[in-house]
Amino acid sequence: MKETWALGVDLGGTKLEVAGIGEDGTIRDSMRLPTNVKGGPAVIERDIADMAGVLRERAGIPPVGIGVGIPGQIDGDTGVVLFCPNLGWHEVPLLADLRHLLDMPVAVTNDVRAITWGEWVHGAGRGLDDIVCLYVGTGIGGGVVSAGRLLSGCTNTAGELGHITVDMKGPPCTCGNVGCLESLAGGWAIARQAREMIGEDGEAGKMLLAFANGSIEAITAETVAAAASAGDRLSLALLEKVCRALVAGCASLVNAFNPCRLILGGGVIDGVPELIDKVRAGVRRFALPAATSGLEVLPGMLGIDAGVVGAASLAMRTFGKEGR
Amino acid sequence: MKETWALGVDLGGTKLEVAGIGEDGTIRDSMRLPTNVKGGPAVIERDIADMAGVLRERAGIPPVGIGVGIPGQIDGDTGVVLFCPNLGWHEVPLLADLRHLLDMPVAVTNDVRAITWGEWVHGAGRGLDDIVCLYVGTGIGGGVVSAGRLLSGCTNTAGELGHITVDMKGPPCTCGNVGCLESLAGGWAIARQAREMIGEDGEAGKMLLAFANGSIEAITAETVAAAASAGDRLSLALLEKVCRALVAGCASLVNAFNPCRLILGGGVIDGVPELIDKVRAGVRRFALPAATSGLEVLPGMLGIDAGVVGAASLAMRTFGKEGR
Repeated sequence: MKETWALGVDLGGTKLEVAGIGEDGTIRDSMRLPTNVKGGPAVIERDIADMAGVLRERAGIPPVGIGVGIPGQIDGDTGVVLFCPNLGWHEVPLLADLRHLLDMPVAVTNDVRAITWGEWVHGAGRGLDDIVCLYVGTGIGGGVVSAGRLLSGCTNTAGELGHITVDMKGPPCTCGNVGCLESLAGGWAIARQAREMIGEDGEAGKMLLAFANGSIEAITAETVAAAASAGDRLSLALLEKVCRALVAGCASLVNAFNPCRLILGGGVIDGVPELIDKVRAGVRRFALPAATSGLEVLPGMLGIDAGVVGAASLAMRTFGKEGR
Repeated sequence: MKETWALGVDLGGTKLEVAGIGEDGTIRDSMRLPTNVKGGPAVIERDIADMAGVLRERAGIPPVGIGVGIPGQIDGDTGVVLFCPNLGWHEVPLLADLRHLLDMPVAVTNDVRAITWGEWVHGAGRGLDDIVCLYVGTGIGGGVVSAGRLLSGCTNTAGELGHITVDMKGPPCTCGNVGCLESLAGGWAIARQAREMIGEDGEAGKMLLAFANGSIEAITAETVAAAASAGDRLSLALLEKVCRALVAGCASLVNAFNPCRLILGGGVIDGVPELIDKVRAGVRRFALPAATSGLEVLPGMLGIDAGVVGAASLAMRTFGKEGR
């Protein structure tokens, strides 16, 4: 009996992973490389094609297709990556290029939308018609399943949940707006606020600075999480602020979408897992009672594999005979 | 040839309208009464049944059913009105009561969701798969069509768009949260801010106060709109503030839902129609370019009839052979 499987690609700013995924969502085989951002689209596409070729050969039978998740905005009709800040890409015809390089059906999608699909089909949102996924990494992305459909919107950008405003008098965001959820709770914004707080009070910032080996420029959200775990008061105060922004944003999402599950993931959540309990309590307190009566707030179940599992599952659904 | 028609009910805090609507969304006949809020559910339900009976008799042929829109949260399974602040209703079994009184199929839904349905089928959102309706009246309600479906969510409260947070350090909202869009741009919030501004600077507030015949308690959003039209600087400054909150909220909605049309309506918009141009310009400036590339920001087309047309169209869709 031949097994149905698909290839999933997680194309991030630091690593490029390609995996073979079975119909049940499990990883059968995988490869990864550092993302050659400097090499540009052609080199990265070649890397994807090479790894896909190896995995296909090892499997013995061809996959039903390949799904690629990328942290950017994709034209839904053409598969052109309109903008991907992490890779510095503008208007890259990723779908067309990969179709040229690969002898199999190709689908390209936003990375968090792929993750949402994975969590919906194989993870924390399984069996439900209404879920919201919020991924809090360096940036913040999202995906929404409502009335049993993964929302794509008018121009394929539905679910840009990091760019809902939570503080209209807040700090500038990279998107050109101010006070976006991402500008207060995304990894880059946590690092920015940590540097500002140290600048304002060097004495209070000593411990955090020591965690970054004395270099204020080296501070990241991970540094803040590590210092907070060790009891650093400045880092704990900053995470409290981040938590308030997340609660405000999540309450908005719950009121707007009324999901059965709000699924939280990404590096910041993984680094500070107590955020999940705090967001759960905050949403229950601040969102409308009627909107939370059926709600569960949960961590993603697919962990670091979510990207490849989701992208492959989406390809399976799009190109395979089977699927949801 | 028999004509297919349905009854639509707009049950608001001040007026109760029942209308007969044709398949094309036009009003064939209608009746209205002041809402007998003091009379309570039984009297209001009796009024609905009486007017429905008269309209049915006048039409000569029976309607396919009756749709009721009400400004509150409805249990989607039972048709119980969980909470309707304008009528002071808690846990009123409206669907069951009306089924008992009326010899026809009954549907009960949130009023702005009914309006959204009406604008989708017969109005400003016709033919599109992705629209967001934002109704800015005394409170702020919403409705969303995404991927060709009117979203209802997990517990039938999707689209509570007045309760997205735009200022997490903002004023208290009636819902228990702070800084909701409604708490800054809803009619009640405009009146509250006007009173606060007069309290802070009586000299600057003289003109607005004169528009309310000298009674600070009598100031409403309509008073502010009228004074602004006459050039009152305090009112103009307040409306500028309201506009900034609306832009922040609408940019959030556009980024989250990526609609093809953002449809604005309700008393505040009707009273200050220039808000539409300002929101359009603000959203284009502050929402993600990829999310606005297919967007139009428009006023609702159905005007004050939107409630009855929408409720009837929903009944037509639910119970009629024809419909979308």
